[in-house]
Amino acid sequence: MTAKTAEARAVERANQAFYDAVENSDLDALEGVVLDGPLAETVAVVHPGWPVLRGRREVMRSFALIMANTDYIQFFLTDVEIGVDGDAAVVTCTENILTGGPAEEDDPAGSSLVGGLVVATNVFRRTADGWQLWVHHGSPVLAEQDDETEAAENEE
Amino acid sequence: MTAKTAEARAVERANQAFYDAVENSDLDALEGVVLDGPLAETVAVVHPGWPVLRGRREVMRSFALIMANTDYIQFFLTDVEIGVDGDAAVVTCTENILTGGPAEEDDPAGSSLVGGLVVATNVFRRTADGWQLWVHHGSPVLAEQDDETEAAENEE
Repeated sequence: MTAKTAEARAVERANQAFYDAVENSDLDALEGVVLDGPLAETVAVVHPGWPVLRGRREVMRSFALIMANTDYIQFFLTDVEIGVDGDAAVVTCTENILTGGPAEEDDPAGSSLVGGLVVATNVFRRTADGWQLWVHHGSPVLAEQDDETEAAENEE
Repeated sequence: MTAKTAEARAVERANQAFYDAVENSDLDALEGVVLDGPLAETVAVVHPGWPVLRGRREVMRSFALIMANTDYIQFFLTDVEIGVDGDAAVVTCTENILTGGPAEEDDPAGSSLVGGLVVATNVFRRTADGWQLWVHHGSPVLAEQDDETEAAENEE
């Protein structure tokens, strides 16, 4: 671990604000997190297992759809690593996700909480309004027990 | 489609050089593509289904491992979209992949070609040596036939 610069801390706060907005189903907060202006058309998001969504409008629509279909979601972020260079920053992290869908009709009290593991790379741009999200790519970790992956990881 | 700027074309060439290097199992060419210098520690790659690999050394090792275990790989890139802003650029694309493993011992002539679909977001930085790869995140498309995804895509 190296000491975080003030810049890296600002990026980490922006990254946390992104996950907080999704966690709180707060589309207004998310509007403030996602990059707008001349680069709006180049905003790109990949939800786990989805094709690429390109452009701020399509991205915001997808989050609205996810929020509408998610009763409960909580992110525990681990392995948060931040690289800052000039006006761009890259965050990689592991999203330890706890989600719940609508309660079943025959068991209204039972919440169907499901855990999941997603790795994400998030790119931020510095703007007059602070660091904003340019790219979010989340993907499922499928190969954790795979020999080759393990080998690659253990070769450190 | 908008006309590509000279900058966007340069980024597209760098993106193509990345896939060419992997396709040709050319680790030396890949060395020239992947960002080096002060940001080397922040280079990040996610192979489809893998956890995050962070740092140039670990990234290069993973590609060496993939090359060693792949007899044949070809990328047909579609949906290539490029956003450039200052010294950073984001490319999203769909990798239509054709791979072949080692021929089976009992059928040495038979090549086991397999097709696959991966979506990628690649981030490039401008350097004195041209545009270089800072982040590569590839992930499998799992939800293409999913109703919600389709709905999101069709809502255009």
